[in-house]
Amino acid sequence: MSDKGNQTPGPAFDDAFGQEFVKLLQWRRDVRHFKRDPLPSELVEELLALTDLSPSVGNSQPWRFVMIEEPSLRSAIYEDFKCANSEALNGYKGDKAALYANLKLSGLDDAPVHIAVYCDEAPAQGRGLGRQTMPETLRYSVVSAIHTLWLAARTRGVGLGWVSILHPDKLQSLIQVPDNWSFVAYLCLGYPTVESDTPELQQVGWQERTPWQTRVYKNKVS
Amino acid sequence: MSDKGNQTPGPAFDDAFGQEFVKLLQWRRDVRHFKRDPLPSELVEELLALTDLSPSVGNSQPWRFVMIEEPSLRSAIYEDFKCANSEALNGYKGDKAALYANLKLSGLDDAPVHIAVYCDEAPAQGRGLGRQTMPETLRYSVVSAIHTLWLAARTRGVGLGWVSILHPDKLQSLIQVPDNWSFVAYLCLGYPTVESDTPELQQVGWQERTPWQTRVYKNKVS
Repeated sequence: MSDKGNQTPGPAFDDAFGQEFVKLLQWRRDVRHFKRDPLPSELVEELLALTDLSPSVGNSQPWRFVMIEEPSLRSAIYEDFKCANSEALNGYKGDKAALYANLKLSGLDDAPVHIAVYCDEAPAQGRGLGRQTMPETLRYSVVSAIHTLWLAARTRGVGLGWVSILHPDKLQSLIQVPDNWSFVAYLCLGYPTVESDTPELQQVGWQERTPWQTRVYKNKVS
Repeated sequence: MSDKGNQTPGPAFDDAFGQEFVKLLQWRRDVRHFKRDPLPSELVEELLALTDLSPSVGNSQPWRFVMIEEPSLRSAIYEDFKCANSEALNGYKGDKAALYANLKLSGLDDAPVHIAVYCDEAPAQGRGLGRQTMPETLRYSVVSAIHTLWLAARTRGVGLGWVSILHPDKLQSLIQVPDNWSFVAYLCLGYPTVESDTPELQQVGWQERTPWQTRVYKNKVS
């Protein structure tokens, strides 16, 4: 069976859209300060449906979203975050440690929607195409989906925070998933308490940005 | 130093933008059929500057873009693709093999812009924040950047194709980069010869899509 769908000419995105899209990238943010207001379930469903339009290696769509709603499960995950964050704090000294200790690095306490995101390492869909020499492209496809969700959420006024200060082994013991799924990310979603076009780590003086040109090279890097 | 940037209220993205953004996701596509027309260098620079707005763990911005322009280098990479693609073909039998053999899985022959994308596994920026327990989030940050580039390109009428049918070891011998950089992706950019809202693998009958709801669960997967 073939399914051509809609073809040329595709939509021409005009300058006004292009400029708004730049604003979307500029105001995206990793959000850690959330209002406790719930998100409408139809909005969450709309966002997950849009996320499913993401690119994936061989069209394998290996992303798996586990909505974490049980309070006891959320508490156990929050405890693991506090443990991992305390370990990380021990790696800094002096002023940097003091600054780190004051950073708010997750919205696990307030965000109304929590999603554990996995990669199915052996999806039937796609029939293995494109990932024989680089199987990690399955996990990379899941990351593209997370980024789609991030941007789609922002277009609807919803913030997303990616919590990576967790022990994947601990989460594996807390959340029941098939053996061939690997943990990719834990996400918080909700309405942000504050919006900004500047990363919070930059706002609080953790670091400054450097020009994009310093990350681009030609033919080789010597 | 603190740098608050612009803060609340951020831009409210209206319904018209939201609908156009959905179209952007629907018409994004992994492109393998390119016109040979060059891309204006200022357009490529604009896209790379936008890409730099991507999220990254601890704001580490670990993406490194190596523009591959030397014809001999491009030829060697194309040869590696043909080799890896031939190996992959051997993994399919019968009708599937015949179908695979007819798929065009890269635009390496025609795309005017080639970019090898790497992850700096030890970036100074970000000071290690957020990646102690999950160092793979550095590579995941690079993937988010690639996805930003993909969408930004599409807003400007430019197509992107991600070539993953390559031997990373071979590329390591061909492209000179620091030892602590890992290869993430090889990208082709250019104007597409055809546009569609339907993945090419679906168009040619390689597979069909399944509903997004089949990839969403609650609390556990049993």
